[in-house]
Amino acid sequence: MNAGSSPITTAIRPLTRIEGPEIKDLARGAAILGTGGGGDPYVGRLLAEAAVRERGPVEIVQVPDIPDDAVVVSAAMMGAPTVMVEKLPTGTQFAQAVRDLTARLGIVPTHIACIEAGGVNSTTPIVAAAELGLPLIDADGMGRAFPEVQMVLPTLYGHAAAPMSVADEKGNSLMLDTIDNRWAERLARTATVEMGCSVSTAQYVLTGAQLKESYVPGTLSLCVELGQTLVRARAANADPVAAVADVLSGRIVFEGKVVDVERRTQTGFARGTARVAGIGGNQGREAVLRFQNEHLIVEVDRTVETTAPDLIIVLEADTGEPITTEGLRYGARVRIVTAPADPRWHSAAAHALAGPAYFGYDTDPVLFDGIVVSDS
Amino acid sequence: MNAGSSPITTAIRPLTRIEGPEIKDLARGAAILGTGGGGDPYVGRLLAEAAVRERGPVEIVQVPDIPDDAVVVSAAMMGAPTVMVEKLPTGTQFAQAVRDLTARLGIVPTHIACIEAGGVNSTTPIVAAAELGLPLIDADGMGRAFPEVQMVLPTLYGHAAAPMSVADEKGNSLMLDTIDNRWAERLARTATVEMGCSVSTAQYVLTGAQLKESYVPGTLSLCVELGQTLVRARAANADPVAAVADVLSGRIVFEGKVVDVERRTQTGFARGTARVAGIGGNQGREAVLRFQNEHLIVEVDRTVETTAPDLIIVLEADTGEPITTEGLRYGARVRIVTAPADPRWHSAAAHALAGPAYFGYDTDPVLFDGIVVSDS
Repeated sequence: MNAGSSPITTAIRPLTRIEGPEIKDLARGAAILGTGGGGDPYVGRLLAEAAVRERGPVEIVQVPDIPDDAVVVSAAMMGAPTVMVEKLPTGTQFAQAVRDLTARLGIVPTHIACIEAGGVNSTTPIVAAAELGLPLIDADGMGRAFPEVQMVLPTLYGHAAAPMSVADEKGNSLMLDTIDNRWAERLARTATVEMGCSVSTAQYVLTGAQLKESYVPGTLSLCVELGQTLVRARAANADPVAAVADVLSGRIVFEGKVVDVERRTQTGFARGTARVAGIGGNQGREAVLRFQNEHLIVEVDRTVETTAPDLIIVLEADTGEPITTEGLRYGARVRIVTAPADPRWHSAAAHALAGPAYFGYDTDPVLFDGIVVSDS
Repeated sequence: MNAGSSPITTAIRPLTRIEGPEIKDLARGAAILGTGGGGDPYVGRLLAEAAVRERGPVEIVQVPDIPDDAVVVSAAMMGAPTVMVEKLPTGTQFAQAVRDLTARLGIVPTHIACIEAGGVNSTTPIVAAAELGLPLIDADGMGRAFPEVQMVLPTLYGHAAAPMSVADEKGNSLMLDTIDNRWAERLARTATVEMGCSVSTAQYVLTGAQLKESYVPGTLSLCVELGQTLVRARAANADPVAAVADVLSGRIVFEGKVVDVERRTQTGFARGTARVAGIGGNQGREAVLRFQNEHLIVEVDRTVETTAPDLIIVLEADTGEPITTEGLRYGARVRIVTAPADPRWHSAAAHALAGPAYFGYDTDPVLFDGIVVSDS
């Protein structure tokens, strides 16, 4: 497998198909890369397991093996993860969004891809691929999770999210044609809210060549590896958190107990702050997590340690299980891991797209290795 | 001209084309039928005049002359009339919505139609027809104005609003496929708000035969006649309000001075109440108007006089100029005219679609002739 620009995936065994048993690990690993967002891995797992059980295994294709003239559609869900739990989408809904989009464009899709790494959106493309009988590409558009449609590497390469289709479980559907990817986000988001906060979408129709330049290769294999890393470390009585940090070339920056979580829902996003009081070697210190669906900033003793687009991952201290920002609870013992995002996230344009300032924080981006990047 | 089920249009000269000078009368007459809603006739007039000036006259076709296999698309604007004034739509925007829709369906439209009678939506189809070089049908889907997409007679005949297209002035567009006409309203409405409250739409693709059974014939001619009636009555020193009531087979139910206007904007609609203190023969009496974009209920001395779907029209007392619910001001001297809607609005299904209960009022529908219709 060609690991492209992601050195972290070098040693990982590439997936060749998804048959069922690996989905649990995949969803859990995706929730780690989801950095607190991207939805509940349990929901994503149930959907994908049901699809593979009913429709058969899904073939996984590695990025270097995709023909340049492949016609790739990324399938996803949009909405509030909490709603998805109560209103489980139908399997056919995902395929419907892809079918609507390709019918509109008069194209025949050859591959399905994954737009983000997250508990739900790493697994929903499995459902779409199974329903449509198409191979799924081992890649994603971010190498992590972000909350908005335009916050993907393809945007930085000038690739359009729209035409984009949105389908709900009732049978309503929308087709969007927008002047830029941020408008695709705005119009799809308002429709999603009106449709009940749990819709399937299809977007970023790319050629194989376009996908090769702009997607992060190996994401699904990395997710499975991360999930299995947790299982192996626990079985070996090793430290699962350290093992995860190792796979991601990251480091553990803090360990503590959640002593305060403040949340408010603004324009469809769960914004908030969590305070973590140090324990063990961090006794007497404090970390602050600032999140908006995903963890976007971690501060240790009032100094910004790392910001998005780099990865800030909160894991249950002993088991290493990923904790979503929604799942953060008072009293939880956590360890905070930071890790480098795909290097293409380390540009001024990328920081404008998904850096702290975009999310409304008055903070310059701070990279994993502590380099402060001035946005001015 | 065949007046179909609308006896009120019997004596009216049918329009054959729209060349420019008649647009002023048409827009003002449409604002009368708009019953307080449907937008500012001045905006509608400017748009249509510019389109005819630039693209030439628009041919008007009478309903009986439409071939049964005609392919008719209704063009309209959606949004807040106040925003339209500040953000005048581009002429090409209307044609774009029609082109998007027909391209999607793979059909060639033969005629444009008008979905509602109102200051803006009686004239926007003129713009679309002029841009597209298509004839415009002398009809509309309501015979009045109502605020929501599904509130048209075609809904009662089982005709679908969607596929429906929405286009903004920036170049964004949406295509909706919905399970019913109320969902078309919901999804188009939220998109409209996000797009800046002033978009053009195309919907209700019907055959000529479907249009003949479900549209109100002669609306554009009636609008011109109403506008000219005001001009003629004033020139003859006659009573323009009485003349308008006469054309509509209606009656003047109250005359007074607006003493209180209460407005609140809820979910995109301007809801409110106006109190009118009687003057002249109505001294000592009070009328209350309850509106939601359109006037929906008029009470005189605490008794419901008339409700939607029948027409409640507020005219400036002396000149007979229509006053929109947005334009209602403290101190204005007004006369209130009621008139019968198209008889197809007088069914239980029609009342469920657009009667007082739908708008949240605890009032049974009261027809123009005072007959109370129990919804239970």
